[in-house]
Formats: sequence, structure tokens, C-alpha cells
Amino acid sequence: MKVAKFGGSSLASGGQLQKVIDIVKADPNRKIIVVSAPGKRNKEDTKVTDLLIKYCNVIINDGDVTGIQDKIIRRYQSIAGHFGVPLENIADIEIGIRQLATQVFPNRSYQMAAFKAAGENNNAKLVAAVFNHEGIKAHYMDPLKIGLRVTDVANDAQILPSSYQKLARLSEYTDTLVIPGFFGYNAKNNICTFSRGGSDITGAIVAKAVAAERYENFTDVDAIYAANPNVVENPRKITHLTFREMRELAYAGFSVFHDEALIPAIEGKIPVVVKNTNHPNLPGTLISETKEIDYDNVVSGIASDDGFTGIYIRKYLMDRQVGFTLKILQVLADLNISYEHMPSGIDDLTVIIRSNQLTPELEALVQERIEAAIQPDDFQIEHDYAMVMIVGEGIKDRVGTMAAATASVAIAGVSIVMVNHGASPVSITIGVRKEDADLAVKSLYRTFVNHETVHLTNLID
Amino acid sequence: MKVAKFGGSSLASGGQLQKVIDIVKADPNRKIIVVSAPGKRNKEDTKVTDLLIKYCNVIINDGDVTGIQDKIIRRYQSIAGHFGVPLENIADIEIGIRQLATQVFPNRSYQMAAFKAAGENNNAKLVAAVFNHEGIKAHYMDPLKIGLRVTDVANDAQILPSSYQKLARLSEYTDTLVIPGFFGYNAKNNICTFSRGGSDITGAIVAKAVAAERYENFTDVDAIYAANPNVVENPRKITHLTFREMRELAYAGFSVFHDEALIPAIEGKIPVVVKNTNHPNLPGTLISETKEIDYDNVVSGIASDDGFTGIYIRKYLMDRQVGFTLKILQVLADLNISYEHMPSGIDDLTVIIRSNQLTPELEALVQERIEAAIQPDDFQIEHDYAMVMIVGEGIKDRVGTMAAATASVAIAGVSIVMVNHGASPVSITIGVRKEDADLAVKSLYRTFVNHETVHLTNLID
Repeated sequence: MKVAKFGGSSLASGGQLQKVIDIVKADPNRKIIVVSAPGKRNKEDTKVTDLLIKYCNVIINDGDVTGIQDKIIRRYQSIAGHFGVPLENIADIEIGIRQLATQVFPNRSYQMAAFKAAGENNNAKLVAAVFNHEGIKAHYMDPLKIGLRVTDVANDAQILPSSYQKLARLSEYTDTLVIPGFFGYNAKNNICTFSRGGSDITGAIVAKAVAAERYENFTDVDAIYAANPNVVENPRKITHLTFREMRELAYAGFSVFHDEALIPAIEGKIPVVVKNTNHPNLPGTLISETKEIDYDNVVSGIASDDGFTGIYIRKYLMDRQVGFTLKILQVLADLNISYEHMPSGIDDLTVIIRSNQLTPELEALVQERIEAAIQPDDFQIEHDYAMVMIVGEGIKDRVGTMAAATASVAIAGVSIVMVNHGASPVSITIGVRKEDADLAVKSLYRTFVNHETVHLTNLID
Repeated sequence: MKVAKFGGSSLASGGQLQKVIDIVKADPNRKIIVVSAPGKRNKEDTKVTDLLIKYCNVIINDGDVTGIQDKIIRRYQSIAGHFGVPLENIADIEIGIRQLATQVFPNRSYQMAAFKAAGENNNAKLVAAVFNHEGIKAHYMDPLKIGLRVTDVANDAQILPSSYQKLARLSEYTDTLVIPGFFGYNAKNNICTFSRGGSDITGAIVAKAVAAERYENFTDVDAIYAANPNVVENPRKITHLTFREMRELAYAGFSVFHDEALIPAIEGKIPVVVKNTNHPNLPGTLISETKEIDYDNVVSGIASDDGFTGIYIRKYLMDRQVGFTLKILQVLADLNISYEHMPSGIDDLTVIIRSNQLTPELEALVQERIEAAIQPDDFQIEHDYAMVMIVGEGIKDRVGTMAAATASVAIAGVSIVMVNHGASPVSITIGVRKEDADLAVKSLYRTFVNHETVHLTNLID
């Protein structure tokens, strides 16, 4: 049994949904279909989810809801119309959308969650109706009824592990099931949504629950690329990644998935395939627990992400004090700041964090508290670092990868502000200044994907 | 005014002391002389300090002390005899050594400290007597009387900052002063010794106190070498180091100084010179706050030290949890374990510590507590890491140094298990397996000191 998730662009119009129907029909093992809300049909279009957020805000501001209600309902109806599905078959959708306006919620967070979730929920009803009309015997599955229980955080919920047992019974159906992505229910039957990569998470949860042979994630790209196409022209498609390669690449800005979306699939060791709804015959990218390592191509992907800040602290005899770093991390934890990298010298320490965790006020507070805690001899905050990562199974086993990586960055004329290597078996992280990140990525791509020779001679004479 | 410290080998015999006299006479600015206890005269000889430890143990075990007392006293008398100094001029020494046997101490720690300190204390008396006999007007200075007050830790004391004001008055003397190294007095007038590099510390303290123009550290090597002579044949002598270069090199096993011995000199910004008593006309190695950087020779020294252990911890979504590393460091701090390096991945963390902090029992405890604190998915302890460091002012400013360093290690066929770079402006640390450390040091020496070209081509085909 396969679980297939289709994203918003794959379900934006009747034409797109036809492709989905063809895909589902092409493989009888595609038994569980997880759907997003209809996305944009073109660049100027608005996603249904964004219309629903607007709808919610109109209600909060006591505005007239008819216009926005109609607009949302028409999106679903126009897709149904493409297939000639009678409107009475999807009467539930109009009723549901209009009823949202009068429903009572514990507070605005739950209200917003319920409005957003309506995009997926009604789309699952629509897709099931269209499937049946087109000859696929299908059932809409209500997350409440199938037991998709989540933690009680209205817009940032997590799956409750106890859900899996009940969800496992989804494998007992013989017909096709259509499940809305993005949300579940708390113990009081309120809708709570996942935070980011919402429908991807639902797909991964269901795939784990039914121990699917494969979790297919249909989107609008042919594959995951070895580098960002906005930086490297026509980058290589990745045919096979391991879960941990994916995690590391996602960390450094690979955006096909949010890395956390895959966690249930990783836990269940369910192989994931990223495929393009528009080119379903292309192999896409397989992501699985292990893979055979190609030692001539150890680097699977090269990514970079900016928005990092370095907090530099210097104090004589720092290394002698047990618990010194502890005090610094305690200051950060008290301010709810997590760190990313922590290179250290004998008397120096740099704590590298995501800049979006800081405000100028918080920076001042960090400095004040660190000064109080450890009386540093020097304290500096530097912004605008970027982290460039090369990722690949086998990196650790191959003598010279580190040398090639740093040489590659050096020949691009880029200064290395930090190297973090040694814990992860599949990645090397090189810190550079933000403005140098693309240069570094391009050079690393030439070195590790195109296998262009690095001539280091001129650097070290 | 210069402060000159002479080590045990420089004072082991009358012949050696003659060299010291010549050195002191050669420069009238050498006004304050700090002395160690007489060291070994040849490979089979025993240091006076070791004789004193034996003496203390004989007393503790109620043995017969006459033999060991005589042996110690003869060491001093034979040096005096070399110069024809009448024994009555050093009668204090015999009395002092014999009286130790009947002195009462608060406990055995203080007893041991007082016995060890007697080596330096009596040598200062001897050297002052010989100086006077040889025409240098000199005074033995009692650390108690000059105000050398230390923390109340019998065998691991630290200078009390309040001492400096009184010690500053040493600069008011016109005659030569001879001060015993290695110890001071606590508030109750008990002798407490410094831990390691003891006489070096006293010299640095006194140099700081009198704001010496220079602190000369006379030992038995011509200079500090750019690499360990046991690893690299005939390594280059270093003419000039900065304090922070010295700190980093000392960390990685450079043993001319214990790094902490220099702290008072660093605080006082007193230039330090390491010189050879046997070749006093050689320039030695100057260590000072700043130096002019030679960008064609950015690497001053290459050092390595083994005895490191890596604690590897893996947990999914580690990076999401604020305070995760904090919990790990708290476990270590509770067990009084300090860490050295901490490379991290997205879901991995390696904490590298000095192996001498661990026992098998403590290892089990670390594992047990970390498992209780964070429930890792994987936990492993790996021993026998070595840290190889290249150290030099200017390393951070020069694009390509990192690349050259890792390439150099790679061409030696050595796997890099860790890189720590980014916090210290003057060093790059590369972790390797213990058995590879010498290979790495040799290759780095060829690259950065001999400037042999690194051909990286074959590594990254």
C-alpha cells in the first residue's frame, strides 16, 4: 500500500486534478490520498488557505462575509464543474464553509486553526466526490473519525503517539481513502493545525500508521536538486537521498520539505518519493533509511542558508573552568534562544545562532546577562553569517573531502569564518559571510558535482 | 629592571650555577632572580624536590630520616663547596632541612607542600650566599616577608591579587634579590605550592609586580621550536610568539611552559624571553602581547596532543530543543568534567574532553545520566583522539590557510575526525586518531614551515 500526498499546486484546478486522477489510477497500490487545499492556478492567484484566513479576519472584524464565502465556495465548485460532478454531490462543502461564520470557538487561535483547516478538509471531500465520479471508489475520511489526535496547540500541534494505533486501521479498507492534510483534533475535539509543511506531516503520519511500502509526495518539481537552481544553473537531480542527508539539507535551506515533516516517515522507516504531478513518469527523488554509497560522488547536495549571528566571547583561562559554556548556554536558554554551532578556542568561544531569534533589545539582554554571568574580556556580536553545507553519505569515510571543500571555497576567494565538522557523519558545515555564500556554493558544486579539479598550489606557497 | 628565572637544570651543580652567575653579571638590569630547586646533574640523578618528597614520606612512615636528610643537605653543600663558600655561610640550610622533621603541620597536604617548597627555599638561600661570595651583592628574599600570599590550597594554590601591591616594593632594592619559586603563604602562614610550572609562575608574578621590562626564563633549550623535535627533525626555532599563540601551543602539548604559568606576565603585558642557560648569547624566543605578522609565514607553530575522548550523542530533532546541549553540559559539570571541543550536526553532537578526566566508572555514569537527561537515539564513547593545532597570528586573515591545512593532512593519508575553527583568531584545530597525529604534524610542518607545495589534485578527481 502506498500513501500519496498531493500539494496545493497539484490540486489547484480541474486540469491539475485530472493529472492526480491519472496518477491514482495508474497504480492500484495508491490507496491513501492525502490532500492539501487548492493552491494557486497562476502567479496572480490566491491560495484557498489565504482566502480562508481573510474570511476569518472579516468575521473577527464583523465585516460582510458573503463575498469571501462565495469566492471560496466557487473555487471548489469550479473544480467539480470541470468534471461535471453534480453540485448536490458536494453540497456539504458550501454548507461547511458558510457555517464557519457562526461557529463558536474557545478563542481566536482555535478559530484561525479551524478556518485554515477548512481548506484541506473541504478539498478532501471534493477530491473524494470527483474520484467517485471518475470511477475511483473513494471515501472522504474525517480526521476526527479516523483518530488523528494532536497536542493542544491551536496552530502548532504535534501528533499524539497514541493516534497511531487507531490510524493503523486505515489499512483495512479496500477502497481509496482521501484524507485532508494539515490538521487533527485535540482532546476536546477542537481543530489544531500543524505548524509548517502541514499536509506533508499528515501524509508521513498516515504512511507510518499503515506501514506503507512507500510515501509518495507529489509536488511541482521533478526532483530534489543537488543545489539551489537560483544559485547553480541547471543543477543535477538527486535520485536517492538518505533521511539524514535530507535532514541536513533541509536545515541549510533546501525547501522541498520542511525537515520536520518527514519525521513520522523516518520513525517508521517508510521510503519517501518526491515526484512531480506534472511529470509523474520521471523517477523523482527517493528518500530512505539507507542507500548504496557512490564513492565517486560522495556529495549528494550543497546547500546554504543565511541569517546567522555569531556571539563571540573571549576570556582568559576559559578552558579551565568547568561549566563555563554551561553558564553561557543557560543565559541563552533562559531567553529561549537555541544555538546552531559553537566553535571554540582556548580562550575564545563563538556561539552561532539563527538571527531571527534576536531583536536589538534581546541582543542587549544577551550581552548584559553573559557579562554578568562570566565577565568576559571581550564580547562581540556579528551578524550576516551564512552556513554552507555539503551533505552526503560517505563524506566521513573519504580522506580529503574536508580538504577539497575548504580548498574549493578558498579558490573562490571566500574567507572561511567557521568550520563545523566531526559530529555529523554526513555533512561538513562551513561558515562564510552572507555575501559570499553563493560564490561558495557555486565553487563547491563545481568541485563535488562537476568534479572540476581544484588547484590549491597558489594558495599555500 | 629584568626578572630572571632559572630552572632546576640551570642550578643542578656548581658548574651550572657558574653559568648563572656569568649571566647575572653580564646584565646589571637582571636584578631579581627567581630560582627552582637543584635539578638533575645527569640522567640517573634525582631532583632535590624528589628527595624532599621521599624525606616527607619517611617521616609519615616513622622511618629513619638521617640518611635522606644528609643526602639533601649534601646537594646544597656540594654546590657551595664548588665556589669555596664557607659552610657557616649556609648553616641555615642544614638547620632548616633537619627541622622539617619535627615541624607540626595542620595536615599531610600542608606537610607535603612545605617539604617540596624547601627545595626552592633553601636554594634561594644558597644562591644568594654564592652570589655574595662571587661579588654580586645579593639578598635572599623570604616569600612570607615580601608578601607572596596565595589561596589556601596546599598543593594547588593561586596568587592572591592583593599580593601585588606589596610585591611591587621589590623594585625599590638596588642590590640583587634571590627569590625562591614555586610557593607562597596562606593567611595562616602555612606554605602552599603552585600546582604546575611552579617557579615559572613565581617569576611571572614578580615580573608583573615590579612591572619588569622583561621576564627572562632560563632553561635548557635554545628556544621554543615550531614543532616537537621528537616528531619533526631539527625544527625551526621560533624567534617571536604572541601570548595567545603561546597559550594555544601550550594547550596542544608544547611543554616549555605550562600555559598557566604565563598568566601573570600576560596580565602585566611583560615581554617574556625563553633562553638557554648553556647558550645565553642565543636570542631565544620572545613572547609578547603583539608582534609584526609575517604573512609569508603565518604559522608560528604546530603542536599535537593526544588523550582526547569523544562522546557522541545522536537524537532526532536535537536542534529544535532549546537547552538540549545545556542538559548535556550540566551532566558533565555535575561530574566536574570540562569539555574541549563540541562539533555538532543537525541531530548529532560530539563532546570532546580530555580522557584523563574519565574512569570506566565515570564513563558509565556519564552515559547513564545523559541517557536519563535526554534519551538519546545513539550514544557512543570513542577514545584515542589527538588534537593537532596550527597556530599563528594572521591565520584568520589569510584565505586558504584552512584549505592548505586540511589538504596537508589529507595528503598524509590521515582521516580528519573533527575540525574546530572559527572562534580563535590564531589557531585551527584538527582532530585525528592518536596514531595519525605525528603523520599530520609532519605534513603540516612541510606545508607551513618548509612551504612544500600541496598537490591536492589526486584527492578530489
